[in-house]
Amino acid sequence: MNGELNALDRLVALFSKLPGIGKKSAGRLVYHVLDADPSYARTLAAELAGLHHAIKRCGTCGSFTESDPCPICASPARDRSLICVVERAQDVRVIDESREFQGLFHVLGGLIAPLEGVNPGDLAIAQLAGRVRDEGVREVILALNPTIEGDTTALYIQKFLREKLPSRQIEISRLASGLPVGGDLEYTDRLTLSRSLRGRIKM
Amino acid sequence: MNGELNALDRLVALFSKLPGIGKKSAGRLVYHVLDADPSYARTLAAELAGLHHAIKRCGTCGSFTESDPCPICASPARDRSLICVVERAQDVRVIDESREFQGLFHVLGGLIAPLEGVNPGDLAIAQLAGRVRDEGVREVILALNPTIEGDTTALYIQKFLREKLPSRQIEISRLASGLPVGGDLEYTDRLTLSRSLRGRIKM
Repeated sequence: MNGELNALDRLVALFSKLPGIGKKSAGRLVYHVLDADPSYARTLAAELAGLHHAIKRCGTCGSFTESDPCPICASPARDRSLICVVERAQDVRVIDESREFQGLFHVLGGLIAPLEGVNPGDLAIAQLAGRVRDEGVREVILALNPTIEGDTTALYIQKFLREKLPSRQIEISRLASGLPVGGDLEYTDRLTLSRSLRGRIKM
Repeated sequence: MNGELNALDRLVALFSKLPGIGKKSAGRLVYHVLDADPSYARTLAAELAGLHHAIKRCGTCGSFTESDPCPICASPARDRSLICVVERAQDVRVIDESREFQGLFHVLGGLIAPLEGVNPGDLAIAQLAGRVRDEGVREVILALNPTIEGDTTALYIQKFLREKLPSRQIEISRLASGLPVGGDLEYTDRLTLSRSLRGRIKM
């Protein structure tokens, strides 16, 4: 039956291109869609077809948005002296949903990784410096992953901002790295443990 | 930003209706689609929109197919004296891909589960008896899950076929139940172990 079930196979192939979805899960998803009311497939199809038309990048911060500038950049309630720098547009949502941060965002579009061909010039670092210079930013929080690429990028941005804006007293910080809440010392890797020790907090 | 990112949120909600996809994974999928070339979303949308039109149920065996009768029912190479009975249409593909079975299939459309309102009359059991009677079937293999519902349904079908076709000498069998290949005795539950003992094979 295989060669002939084209519509099914094509959809399985498309679904298995999604992150974390193997060929088996993709098959399960397609059969679920087939079993479900056809209106589900129709609605999903319509939303997917319209997605890139509806969602754009904010011209200021680079996050995904339906309006440009995005609601965060346009909001008068936001603290405009604070910029949180993230790797990808989806990180904006994660941090915003924590309700811990009331400033603005800046999406880099990646991390410096020379071996993968990602150089500083490919990221929105110059634009960040421009925003810091023009918008009266006082603090830059680098919310990058605690990986080699994240560390490299954070150091590069720090140096870049200091060099480009030597006269400005900008605070530059990174997210704390250490044990996750609810985590267990015993199951924590050595690097995380050493970071949590170096970054220990006085009580 | 939340209230206003409607297209994104709607797609997250739709994706999280799929089996095994929570709200977080759904978000990851949507961002992946957004990051990918828009042609991916367009193709996925087109395939989804056309899915129910392209894929139907085979009028004979009940499996998903683009043509009716399905390639398996229509194939002259198949052993027509052998019918493999499965719960759902997707089970046909799993068994067919094992290449162990060269007969025909019959999809029940569920398992008997009175508490969930699924009674024998809701399943394609009478149709199965009809096919066995009219198509010269000699053996019926019940490839149902080794669960209470699967066991109940298997027993019911056995009784039904014997009663409806008393004059026919049909072999009725079930899939062997026991340790999975590569499995470990130590991690096998007691029921599986007792089934593998009862069904032990002489060497």
